[in-house]
Amino acid sequence: MIHSKRTVLTLAVLLTVASLARAQSDPLPSWNDGPNKRAIVDFVARVTKEGSPDFVPVAQRIATFDNDGTLWSEQPIYFQFAFALDRVKALAPHHPEWKTQQPFKAVLDGDMKTLVASGEKGLAEIIMTTHTGMTTDEFTRTVFDWLITAKHPTKKRFYTDLVYQPMLELLAFLRANNFKTFIVSGGTVEFMRAFAEKVYGIPPEQIVGTSFVTKFQVNATGVPVLMREPKIDFIDDGPGKPVGIQKFIGRRPIFAIGNSDGDQQMLQWTAAGTSARFMGLVRHTDAEREWAYDRNSHIGKLDRALDEAIARKWVVVDMKNDWKVIYPPER
Amino acid sequence: MIHSKRTVLTLAVLLTVASLARAQSDPLPSWNDGPNKRAIVDFVARVTKEGSPDFVPVAQRIATFDNDGTLWSEQPIYFQFAFALDRVKALAPHHPEWKTQQPFKAVLDGDMKTLVASGEKGLAEIIMTTHTGMTTDEFTRTVFDWLITAKHPTKKRFYTDLVYQPMLELLAFLRANNFKTFIVSGGTVEFMRAFAEKVYGIPPEQIVGTSFVTKFQVNATGVPVLMREPKIDFIDDGPGKPVGIQKFIGRRPIFAIGNSDGDQQMLQWTAAGTSARFMGLVRHTDAEREWAYDRNSHIGKLDRALDEAIARKWVVVDMKNDWKVIYPPER
Repeated sequence: MIHSKRTVLTLAVLLTVASLARAQSDPLPSWNDGPNKRAIVDFVARVTKEGSPDFVPVAQRIATFDNDGTLWSEQPIYFQFAFALDRVKALAPHHPEWKTQQPFKAVLDGDMKTLVASGEKGLAEIIMTTHTGMTTDEFTRTVFDWLITAKHPTKKRFYTDLVYQPMLELLAFLRANNFKTFIVSGGTVEFMRAFAEKVYGIPPEQIVGTSFVTKFQVNATGVPVLMREPKIDFIDDGPGKPVGIQKFIGRRPIFAIGNSDGDQQMLQWTAAGTSARFMGLVRHTDAEREWAYDRNSHIGKLDRALDEAIARKWVVVDMKNDWKVIYPPER
Repeated sequence: MIHSKRTVLTLAVLLTVASLARAQSDPLPSWNDGPNKRAIVDFVARVTKEGSPDFVPVAQRIATFDNDGTLWSEQPIYFQFAFALDRVKALAPHHPEWKTQQPFKAVLDGDMKTLVASGEKGLAEIIMTTHTGMTTDEFTRTVFDWLITAKHPTKKRFYTDLVYQPMLELLAFLRANNFKTFIVSGGTVEFMRAFAEKVYGIPPEQIVGTSFVTKFQVNATGVPVLMREPKIDFIDDGPGKPVGIQKFIGRRPIFAIGNSDGDQQMLQWTAAGTSARFMGLVRHTDAEREWAYDRNSHIGKLDRALDEAIARKWVVVDMKNDWKVIYPPER
């Protein structure tokens, strides 16, 4: 069969137009068609359609997202912990005693076995040393600096490039439908605030997380500062998540999504509201493009929450099958 | 001089149109013209004008308002304390022991002298008893019910009618210029959340205040609840205000206004930022229409903050001279 040049051109133009139209009408282009994508799109349509029995007024369209493992990767170690280890190395010249003092020696030697053996006490010591004892402004600068220099050990990309493209689309889709999007994470607030606005479009005042006690002080030159103290103020994980939601947001979400047992109570709290609502989990099923882990993982363990999600028919996103791409294209 | 009917009518129409136009172009109609009103209007013009050296991007237009004495009255006792006293009376039938037990007996007897003599410990006991030991939803309902029934002892109006009309206009003016308006108050969060959205247009997630510890529990019927525990979580007053601002908002305000020494550190923190900024105090100077008090008041004491405001040329609103009306018209 012979086509004239003109016919081929016309067809090409038509196909391009059709694909553009499809892309424009699809708010979640990185999601494969299927029941999970449909559940999201249907939910948003139902709660935003005036006159629908499931209509929810704009002010109540609160959506909460876990961060680690839900909006960006969390393997082989939480990215915030990678930051802490890098800070230990950066601070080491000012701490000659760390050459012999655990758990710092283990960090400097790259001896992960000894580090893990130092247990919660050792890990807490590393977090406190690297996250407190400075002003809020100083801490934020160290996070900024790290984010534009450090790269992930195996993916070889900036950590902020390891956010999930399908979730960025979901955040934008919800906001386009007048949802207010919040992070509700076990990670610490100030760490996330350093990048969440630029990367996720979520402003500092919409981030709920674990926090340290801070103290107002007027420094020697008369300038007021907020000092970060080596004391936990609030742990935003597990049963702490509904507490954090009430404390910082004061409204029950109608949309919540997480990826681990630490999100179970947030989903239960969301599910117990009265209007239409959406509960979801991201399941890490893609060993090739990301990581595959759930019930037996030390990081992002997903076990009891998965059982409850299945029993209650919450959406369980299957990363491998639901997502066309995992990360945004290389910058 | 004789006017034709027609001339009079024309004049009347012209005057009406002129006054309407003036009202429309005046964002703060309840403020008398003068340096304070001009300072507010000029500040907003400067930070919102693109290309102006003082331009501030929308995301950074954070405005924080104290509540008691700044957005609504606080005499003869904080309205939240009036709520607590009324709750003691409402709960008394379930607590026969209060007939003989202080400080409750004093409340039931209307014996303010003994009540005041019970000191901070007694007042804290009344607050704890009336504000904790129930779920967040239950507490909110008691506040709702109180607000639509209780009336101020001398003004004989609902407490939510005793908000300052000029401040409502200021809030609306700032929001019309893409400021995000927050309350930062020593009052407790859940109490304010019960009315702030309807009365001030400030949503629950933009209220920073003193809070109680809450605990996530699943009740006997399998429903998750948040229980309010008789333990202070955070005191949002004095040096606590910059801490609360950082904790909940995560950005430094460019506009802050309070009325007492408890707001001094919030104003210092605001003043220490780098872009254009506005710091203000409301001074209670109107014994006739509201109350007149400052340096020697037990409630809303304004002493050190006033000295600093004068020294640093912050705006000190003079209620009597700056405000045409105090409260909105009767409903």
